[in-house]
Amino acid sequence: MSGQLCRGRFAGGHPSRPPGPPPTAAAGAPSRGARGAAAGQRNGHAGPGFPQRGIAAGMRGRTMSGPRTPEPALDGQGDSPTGSRDEEAAGGMQCSQRMLSFSDALLSIIATVMILPVTHTEISPEQEFDRSVQKLLATRIAVYLMTFLIVTVAWAAHTRLFQVVGKIDDTLALLNLACMMTITFLPFTFSLMVTFPEVPLGIFLFCMCVIAIGAVQALIVVYAFHFPHLLSPQIAHSAHRTLYRRHILGVILPGPALCSAAAGFSLFCYPVSYLLMAAVIFLPYVSKAAGWGRARLGGPREPPAHSLEVFTFDLHEPLSKERVEAFSDGVYAIVATLLILDICEDNVPDAKDVKEKFQGSLVAALGASGPHFLAYFGSFATVGLLWFSHHSLFLHIRKATRPMGLLNTLSLAFVGGLPLAYQQTSAFARQPRDELESVRVSCAIIFLASIFQFAIWTTALLQEGETLQPSARFGGREHAFMFAKLALYPCASLLAFTCTCVLSRFSTAIFHAMQIAVPFTFLLLRLLVRLALAGLRGLRGLALPAQARPARGAVDGARSPLLPAPC
Amino acid sequence: MSGQLCRGRFAGGHPSRPPGPPPTAAAGAPSRGARGAAAGQRNGHAGPGFPQRGIAAGMRGRTMSGPRTPEPALDGQGDSPTGSRDEEAAGGMQCSQRMLSFSDALLSIIATVMILPVTHTEISPEQEFDRSVQKLLATRIAVYLMTFLIVTVAWAAHTRLFQVVGKIDDTLALLNLACMMTITFLPFTFSLMVTFPEVPLGIFLFCMCVIAIGAVQALIVVYAFHFPHLLSPQIAHSAHRTLYRRHILGVILPGPALCSAAAGFSLFCYPVSYLLMAAVIFLPYVSKAAGWGRARLGGPREPPAHSLEVFTFDLHEPLSKERVEAFSDGVYAIVATLLILDICEDNVPDAKDVKEKFQGSLVAALGASGPHFLAYFGSFATVGLLWFSHHSLFLHIRKATRPMGLLNTLSLAFVGGLPLAYQQTSAFARQPRDELESVRVSCAIIFLASIFQFAIWTTALLQEGETLQPSARFGGREHAFMFAKLALYPCASLLAFTCTCVLSRFSTAIFHAMQIAVPFTFLLLRLLVRLALAGLRGLRGLALPAQARPARGAVDGARSPLLPAPC
Repeated sequence: MSGQLCRGRFAGGHPSRPPGPPPTAAAGAPSRGARGAAAGQRNGHAGPGFPQRGIAAGMRGRTMSGPRTPEPALDGQGDSPTGSRDEEAAGGMQCSQRMLSFSDALLSIIATVMILPVTHTEISPEQEFDRSVQKLLATRIAVYLMTFLIVTVAWAAHTRLFQVVGKIDDTLALLNLACMMTITFLPFTFSLMVTFPEVPLGIFLFCMCVIAIGAVQALIVVYAFHFPHLLSPQIAHSAHRTLYRRHILGVILPGPALCSAAAGFSLFCYPVSYLLMAAVIFLPYVSKAAGWGRARLGGPREPPAHSLEVFTFDLHEPLSKERVEAFSDGVYAIVATLLILDICEDNVPDAKDVKEKFQGSLVAALGASGPHFLAYFGSFATVGLLWFSHHSLFLHIRKATRPMGLLNTLSLAFVGGLPLAYQQTSAFARQPRDELESVRVSCAIIFLASIFQFAIWTTALLQEGETLQPSARFGGREHAFMFAKLALYPCASLLAFTCTCVLSRFSTAIFHAMQIAVPFTFLLLRLLVRLALAGLRGLRGLALPAQARPARGAVDGARSPLLPAPC
Repeated sequence: MSGQLCRGRFAGGHPSRPPGPPPTAAAGAPSRGARGAAAGQRNGHAGPGFPQRGIAAGMRGRTMSGPRTPEPALDGQGDSPTGSRDEEAAGGMQCSQRMLSFSDALLSIIATVMILPVTHTEISPEQEFDRSVQKLLATRIAVYLMTFLIVTVAWAAHTRLFQVVGKIDDTLALLNLACMMTITFLPFTFSLMVTFPEVPLGIFLFCMCVIAIGAVQALIVVYAFHFPHLLSPQIAHSAHRTLYRRHILGVILPGPALCSAAAGFSLFCYPVSYLLMAAVIFLPYVSKAAGWGRARLGGPREPPAHSLEVFTFDLHEPLSKERVEAFSDGVYAIVATLLILDICEDNVPDAKDVKEKFQGSLVAALGASGPHFLAYFGSFATVGLLWFSHHSLFLHIRKATRPMGLLNTLSLAFVGGLPLAYQQTSAFARQPRDELESVRVSCAIIFLASIFQFAIWTTALLQEGETLQPSARFGGREHAFMFAKLALYPCASLLAFTCTCVLSRFSTAIFHAMQIAVPFTFLLLRLLVRLALAGLRGLRGLALPAQARPARGAVDGARSPLLPAPC
């Protein structure tokens, strides 16, 4: 709906933007998106700063739309947006913003929801946490992780697709819903495949799903290119539109093609089809790495020549930071609520039990499941804090490169595993023998989830000029604190892990207490880092008052002169 | 993080904006939000159009940020946003945008998740759908609906709170997470309360939760007013800041106060506490209606005098359309995925069963649960389409008034009931006696969900000048189609309902087939309405070519001259 967000979305999609159509052409175009694009392009080249400024501004579609804003002033149509939006609405055209948020939410939930079969693995308190249970768990965890990767691949393809398709109408919205429905079916086919590895039907259905998704996406592309006003303005006004179409189809269709081959093989020689499907799932990551490598070799990017446009369009394009954030938020939100779901389902004592077991004392009944509540608070604190550090991290990132996206996916995959950690620590809360083992599992999951976040940060630091806000770079004001923040959870989980090995009296209760204590450590950390920086600053002769006293620094406009150059 | 979205969020919060601080003051302020606000204010008064234009532009923070965009050009700091954002980041200040989306996602999921105990009500296929089961279902449905209302109230308070608090820092982010955690605990305490109505403990815990939420929110307010740069610029620069604080505290604290009274009564006379809690839950809706009534009596709103500011600030302020959309998206997304969750959990056949019951034929095993898949596709189509019509509806709404928000809540409450409809129709798929009854339940749920959407539309039409885009008003180009679109589901569900009464051979299969057919009806509808309009237009002598052929109309700039005045 939002001109601004259309713009942000679009700009986010096309950092490697060619010298676009002149403003007049854009003003001639009917869509806000087009004007936004023109503005973005104008700014991308007219704006101050180093060459990548345009790219950066592009990546910060939502974040940094400021620089592109002079546009309506320039073509002096203060109220034309209303007009064009009514017009779009009337023509059935809509900015894809809200539909994409909805898709992100759906996909993130689907990717995460497959952890439930893992957590619902029946382990009676009597039964020991023996090898067989571990094997069963391992299988289901594998299913979960694979599903997560598959859905993420589908999500990435969806992102790429709607970087080309800038606006939607009713038909596209319905096609997108069909695409979503097919994607929601992937986890089922996959778990079918794992439950019956030697029966070709599972493979066959899975491949059919992938093919159906590809078909719908291809349909979307063809439809959008048939009504070019639906395309993102850069393409709508490009002379190479057919090249674009061929290119994006070339991006979309290989997967389904491989899968149709796999479906064929599944009928007489299914091992081959497993190989083919593995290719489908991992190809994107390989190509990501390849594209990144190419980008690195290419050195700092200039706005590519118009002839190169079509090739640079996809390969060198970083992820849309906005959608990465939306997808991550979805995962964190659903994980946090899967926890309370378990509580509400399992821990409301049954009236009969209370009468019989606890002589009608509800307090006693609740006290019996006290460890669950402790586990819940601990896990929620962990999920919330991991989201919080993710949030702070992406606050300092102004551009998400492909490897960062991959690391983010892996981090999210383990965040999605946190309900398992919760289940482990709460299910075994009262069995000293297994207690430590389950705590170790939790620690491992938390450690992996947080260490990948840390890896995102370090990867960003490798190209900090390109990927980070100035304040977060080496020596930047936020650098030290960001570092400490992201190192907190890996350290804490390692500490807990070692505790389980060293202290025999370490218990889940202590573990959850630790989890609950971490947020306060965060605040303490911030305080300490600020004091340290203030001390340094005192020595350096009050270089950066803003950090030491944000409140006053913010109220009077005194900080403006102290601003660093944007790059 | 987004300056633009900060602006949108903030503007969304304060349509009744007083003639704010001059641009210079805003430029002096460190926050993008401040600049955005100033720009919004400038535009709200400098912008063309009728008096409510400024309000409308404000409400369309995300939608209509176009008109406010000239601002950075005016103070000519093309790249200052980067600087100020780095600065904010360095000062630990962040735009609250992403945190609010995350909160919306969490709250919407929590509100919806309580439908699961309802759907998981064990009804063995042998057992008849008798009165006892119905009674049990009714109780759980009541729990679900009440929880939904409670969480929605908490969400509304949260929205109001963060219309005052414009930016966040780490402390506020952590406080917000604490608030979220307490809210996630509400459903548990409530179901406890329902399971043991005569045991005061449930009431006591519930009240404690509400009090804790209120305490955290009060803490947020106090903290934010202690560091005024965190407040939304309008308030940060207001001379009446203390009045604002007293006012917002007065908005937040009554609920917890009542609840503490209820907690007290729960110890010796719990019926009273039920009354008090009912007051807590329904007061906001009553006050909404009151506020609306006052607004209606007040007639068309002028930007209030500075002295009135504090009173108009909360009462006359419509909901933030952006957050209403985010919350709704969350509900629709989680509902759509609860469906696939059931499929993945229940319909992956067990290897042993396949061997024994189906002689190792997986196809036969899947065929056995075929009705489930049909039900799934039908339900997903319904959820998707309801989201789609909601999306189209809010595309034409440019300002959500309180009654519209209330109707939206009710609609969402029944959307959240759709998994129950799915459960009903799939669980009883093979029992002719109960089949029709379950279909009727589904029809009722779908009818209520869609009729409330329709009610939103009609309510909007009552004040169409204020609430609707021009193109969707009486006689507008989209009006006819929007009407048809929203009438589709009520009609379809009524039709199905009557079928169940008339046709004895009507089955869930037919019902789901109908559900799956609806999307195509949508497309057909669009086609028909377009043809009809084209015919009318042909008679009126091509008044609006844009509607008839959007594609060509869009490509050449020919439509611009045909634009209607924005208002």
